[in-house]
Amino acid sequence: MANLTIRMYSNCLRRTVSFQMFLPNDPREDGQAMENPYVKRGMKTLFLLHGYTGDSWNWVPEELAVQYNFAIVVPSGENGFWIDGISTGHEFGKFLCEELVGYVRKTFGLAKTKEDTYVMGFSMGGFGALHSALAYPDTFGKAAAWSSALIVHEVAGMTPGYDNGVANYEYYRECFGEPSKVLESDNNPETLVKKLKAEGKAFPEIFMACGTEDFLLERNREMHRFLEEQGVAHEYWEDAGIHDMVFWNKCVQKYVPVLFG
Amino acid sequence: MANLTIRMYSNCLRRTVSFQMFLPNDPREDGQAMENPYVKRGMKTLFLLHGYTGDSWNWVPEELAVQYNFAIVVPSGENGFWIDGISTGHEFGKFLCEELVGYVRKTFGLAKTKEDTYVMGFSMGGFGALHSALAYPDTFGKAAAWSSALIVHEVAGMTPGYDNGVANYEYYRECFGEPSKVLESDNNPETLVKKLKAEGKAFPEIFMACGTEDFLLERNREMHRFLEEQGVAHEYWEDAGIHDMVFWNKCVQKYVPVLFG
Amino acid sequence: MANLTIRMYSNCLRRTVSFQMFLPNDPREDGQAMENPYVKRGMKTLFLLHGYTGDSWNWVPEELAVQYNFAIVVPSGENGFWIDGISTGHEFGKFLCEELVGYVRKTFGLAKTKEDTYVMGFSMGGFGALHSALAYPDTFGKAAAWSSALIVHEVAGMTPGYDNGVANYEYYRECFGEPSKVLESDNNPETLVKKLKAEGKAFPEIFMACGTEDFLLERNREMHRFLEEQGVAHEYWEDAGIHDMVFWNKCVQKYVPVLFG
Amino acid sequence: MANLTIRMYSNCLRRTVSFQMFLPNDPREDGQAMENPYVKRGMKTLFLLHGYTGDSWNWVPEELAVQYNFAIVVPSGENGFWIDGISTGHEFGKFLCEELVGYVRKTFGLAKTKEDTYVMGFSMGGFGALHSALAYPDTFGKAAAWSSALIVHEVAGMTPGYDNGVANYEYYRECFGEPSKVLESDNNPETLVKKLKAEGKAFPEIFMACGTEDFLLERNREMHRFLEEQGVAHEYWEDAGIHDMVFWNKCVQKYVPVLFG
Repeated sequence: MANLTIRMYSNCLRRTVSFQMFLPNDPREDGQAMENPYVKRGMKTLFLLHGYTGDSWNWVPEELAVQYNFAIVVPSGENGFWIDGISTGHEFGKFLCEELVGYVRKTFGLAKTKEDTYVMGFSMGGFGALHSALAYPDTFGKAAAWSSALIVHEVAGMTPGYDNGVANYEYYRECFGEPSKVLESDNNPETLVKKLKAEGKAFPEIFMACGTEDFLLERNREMHRFLEEQGVAHEYWEDAGIHDMVFWNKCVQKYVPVLFG
Repeated sequence: MANLTIRMYSNCLRRTVSFQMFLPNDPREDGQAMENPYVKRGMKTLFLLHGYTGDSWNWVPEELAVQYNFAIVVPSGENGFWIDGISTGHEFGKFLCEELVGYVRKTFGLAKTKEDTYVMGFSMGGFGALHSALAYPDTFGKAAAWSSALIVHEVAGMTPGYDNGVANYEYYRECFGEPSKVLESDNNPETLVKKLKAEGKAFPEIFMACGTEDFLLERNREMHRFLEEQGVAHEYWEDAGIHDMVFWNKCVQKYVPVLFG
Repeated sequence: MANLTIRMYSNCLRRTVSFQMFLPNDPREDGQAMENPYVKRGMKTLFLLHGYTGDSWNWVPEELAVQYNFAIVVPSGENGFWIDGISTGHEFGKFLCEELVGYVRKTFGLAKTKEDTYVMGFSMGGFGALHSALAYPDTFGKAAAWSSALIVHEVAGMTPGYDNGVANYEYYRECFGEPSKVLESDNNPETLVKKLKAEGKAFPEIFMACGTEDFLLERNREMHRFLEEQGVAHEYWEDAGIHDMVFWNKCVQKYVPVLFG
Repeated sequence: MANLTIRMYSNCLRRTVSFQMFLPNDPREDGQAMENPYVKRGMKTLFLLHGYTGDSWNWVPEELAVQYNFAIVVPSGENGFWIDGISTGHEFGKFLCEELVGYVRKTFGLAKTKEDTYVMGFSMGGFGALHSALAYPDTFGKAAAWSSALIVHEVAGMTPGYDNGVANYEYYRECFGEPSKVLESDNNPETLVKKLKAEGKAFPEIFMACGTEDFLLERNREMHRFLEEQGVAHEYWEDAGIHDMVFWNKCVQKYVPVLFG
């Protein structure tokens, strides 16, 4: 499994940034994987989105990537919620879905169609996976969102001086824009769902999961119900678990074969 | 010259960050440097601050560091102007001057006194060098500020909707706080100078330079005059040059021997 | 858990080399580990040796290192068997046990006594752990050798033209020296054991393990019997398993608490 | 200029290795390089070979690569002289000219023809550049060899016990094979020249240079005369200089425009 650390200038973020890639294209001659049926199919690409406090050195499912023959791209989204913030250089959504996808396409010839391009994330990255695929349905064919931080309804009620211990008002405003307007904005996945329906556009395949002891369980159930009400096909899975790597690992083991099989 | 890429969790920035270090402590047995008088003195430490759009992979004066036996620490300050912004996780000033200095002290036993700890930067990093040494005069004994982006007076006049092509109002507000209050705030180096004087505290040694064709020349001259008016000892140098690596290299070649000799 | 990638010039290997370090010294303020009793004790250091085909990006037990508060140093030993080969620049033994230990001591103030310095490895690295601790008993207080490639008796019988599919005669000669002389040489751990006994020197604490389905099982049993015959205290463990990460992980989970607890 | 650090498993070297790449494909929207005529031509690739004691973090001509729009690939050849040694895992020649070129082709779609693929090196890397292009004339269209360590005639006279301070007999034997047979072997560039002529194959374009104070001057003059005698077209340049980065930088500044212009 080849590993690439790539530094490039990002016009969206206005600075040099790093991301990680994993390519199952350095097999050992002493036997590894050459009769793998997925190799014949060609290499699909998974954009993997970390959570709050994470970075591009996030854990990746290397063995599954070899088995199912897909590339993994892991950007550093800092704590930007994978959406376009209000400050110059805070365009994490456009960075991921346009600049980085474009860079991977032109440099590696990968991720050229939505059929070959999936996005997956945990927590803040789960929000990002869902948001990115709904905002760019021509780019991402499948979205896998585990334990997603679907917090726009909380954000909508925040006022100056707010601080919940995780972050303060100015942080949420920087990421999501004016809280009073977030629900109608494109930063709200529900808004994107309604727009896609109104435009009659094809939806990405959506996979959601949440642990039954996760503090974000209700937020995920609400999104699940919303998608049901809107008639948007998706898979929603609950199982015992909290908001941690143990549950995310279960999701990955269960759904990578579904996504890439 | 050993090179270290270090990833650590930053409590100030609320995520895992990377920085670079350079240590002249791997001499070749075939002759290199053992009779160097600066080696006997012990290793001083230079914190090197990049400019807007830069990162920790900034150019470093490796040969001079070997010659004068000093360590170099190069953090990634993103575009945060090396000061504490208003959002959670945007404390670039505290990150640099407390968390990173503290980490280098406890991990390497370096930078333990202000006599051993200097800060230098270019452009936005020049602002940062000046600001850091004035805000933490017990930590940094010398500050070297080349072509510094001393822009608080511009920032003070910015209003919502402002955008100068480099960045927008929200960016400057994120970094410097409410523009209308920036001049009296600790984000203004002039305010820090007045406080130090009022408290009767010792000033760091200050070295400033600017190219005579630099678009920031007037901003640097104003700071120079301000320091003169306040009776703050400092060295100010002008020479032919624009806002580029050529001029900064000239500054480094001229002043590293002054700082570390 | 801080991670450091360090590039330094090695006089033993005659070129710039990289190694990895892991330091549990960047705890999160939101609760992590401050009342940890092992933190009070001070940080011990584990040198972790990879196997044939591996490099410094070997898997490391990060969570255990945080729990038991020890640093991990992971060199790239290439395929050099962690001993001094016959070519210039092939001194992998001296590199590890003198140059790298010395560098870690002077740069980090770690691994200053054998009580604080342990060595562990898998396969070729298991051989290296055993060999290093026996060759440098004043440097390493404990050696943990899993599924060790204790192959000197095979090497002793090799002649020009030999090739076992893994490597050829010239490879083994490069690593171990003239095969006909390897058994009496210091590259043979048995020779080192006899020397230590003859000198009346203190032995390192030795921990060995091997899977009962490992193709190297007999080689490990022979070493175990040899140590018993020589009256050298050591712990030897067998359990179900082959020559793979599953068994090594079991060894690490079982013995890190023994080594560092 | 994007920078990639790539770790891959090498079947030739039998372990995971790292190399560096530089790609001028991340231009800044604020003006950089879009009307560059070389961009329209498509990206050529330069394999850059370091000297004895170097590694893949060798200096690279980044600005020239942006200007002339070429990728740079910088492998770590350790001290292996860029040829196939006698030990398993010491195939540095095949690694460079087959495995690495092949990996770059399939991963990036670069270096697909000899017209697009050049090799350049300094000292040991100069020898490697010349040797690689002569051994693989269908792969490399141009070779640039600065201050080349053309030492096969010295090697031919070495006997067991030899040591010239740089390295010992076993080192040279490991790299070049039995010294008594090196002159007729494919490790001797002269032999390759004769073979190419005998086969009537097209030669790569050859550029050589050496400083007039370089200790390798005579070795380079001999190769120059040999190529003249054999009627092999090449460019040979001498200028004031010793065996150092100053002279190599002069070569690069002078010849990159010739190679890529």
